[in-house]
Amino acid sequence: MMAGRFITLEGGEGSGKSTQGRLLAEVLRADGLEVVLTREPGGTPGAEAIRGLLVSGEDTRWTAWSEALLMTAARVDHVVRVIRPALARGAAVICDRFIDSTRAYQGAGRGLEDAALIDLHNEAVGLWPDFTLVLRLAPAEGLARAADRGDAEARFESAGAAFHARIDDFFAMLPGAEPNRCRAINAAGSIEVVSQRIRAALC
Amino acid sequence: MMAGRFITLEGGEGSGKSTQGRLLAEVLRADGLEVVLTREPGGTPGAEAIRGLLVSGEDTRWTAWSEALLMTAARVDHVVRVIRPALARGAAVICDRFIDSTRAYQGAGRGLEDAALIDLHNEAVGLWPDFTLVLRLAPAEGLARAADRGDAEARFESAGAAFHARIDDFFAMLPGAEPNRCRAINAAGSIEVVSQRIRAALC
Repeated sequence: MMAGRFITLEGGEGSGKSTQGRLLAEVLRADGLEVVLTREPGGTPGAEAIRGLLVSGEDTRWTAWSEALLMTAARVDHVVRVIRPALARGAAVICDRFIDSTRAYQGAGRGLEDAALIDLHNEAVGLWPDFTLVLRLAPAEGLARAADRGDAEARFESAGAAFHARIDDFFAMLPGAEPNRCRAINAAGSIEVVSQRIRAALC
Repeated sequence: MMAGRFITLEGGEGSGKSTQGRLLAEVLRADGLEVVLTREPGGTPGAEAIRGLLVSGEDTRWTAWSEALLMTAARVDHVVRVIRPALARGAAVICDRFIDSTRAYQGAGRGLEDAALIDLHNEAVGLWPDFTLVLRLAPAEGLARAADRGDAEARFESAGAAFHARIDDFFAMLPGAEPNRCRAINAAGSIEVVSQRIRAALC
């Protein structure tokens, strides 16, 4: 059922995407599948080098468009070198953040038009997930979790409450707007409870 | 006449763009103008950091799209932080390479569609030069000049004769295709002779 499928995890900071990605990978591997668990920005040496430019420096280091273009440059590398080859050999790919994070952060958060970001993605990347799990958690709770773990991506997390509220609005809207691909997952509660919700959503 | 104008120099490797840019800047400054002389990829700390990713590593390090997106990310930074502010205060800006190099190298050279690159530029950058001087020199002669000076941009210069022939075809075509903006300059001959041709073209 999940062989050759591309699953993305999306949501605000501290919503549990990477933990839940690992648990989902375990579940699918226990079913005998090859699973590639990866993340963005990153996932290849080139994309990790671009990530280094993105996650360092001041909040104002990049304009919104430079940020979106760097994210997309990294995504192209990741898709061409890792994701498409894995899907082609029948692996399931689980990716922590993908195009919807660009739409949320550089689009809703920083003001670029969603349609322009979708055009760019279709032109340069051309791959959409089969399933997108949108982990929903109040921004304040997610940011508190992220602060507790001393997260390295401080540049985004220091960007202010209004910015995170716009991102939260986007992720709140997304599952209703694209119901065939996206499913909202309540990310409040224990790791095990959220993991069960994810497994149920994928059945 | 040239106050607040944006002039780009384009052409293959070793065609004399940077030398001619410096000479043109001297001429305009002698007329009392403020001149900003800059280059791409680069021109700001962020864009220079992106340039570092682009000019190092193997020929196959980046896919064509990643390369075009990195170039455009750097260009946005350069335009927003340097070029637009300079033009707005009435300076002339002379830039060694700009959008036409992306069209030549990632488009004609590496196979991306010119229309897609123009769309991306209009969406993310939104600034076109007032005058583009296309320095025309046989690729073999230009590459020999570049090799003589031990040019650091070895990644592109090692890409092979067929690649450089496609780039040369693009630059040969450009002045005729966009005659209001672009002018072909014969770049064979002494530095002083080519400089005189450039001054004549801008009169």
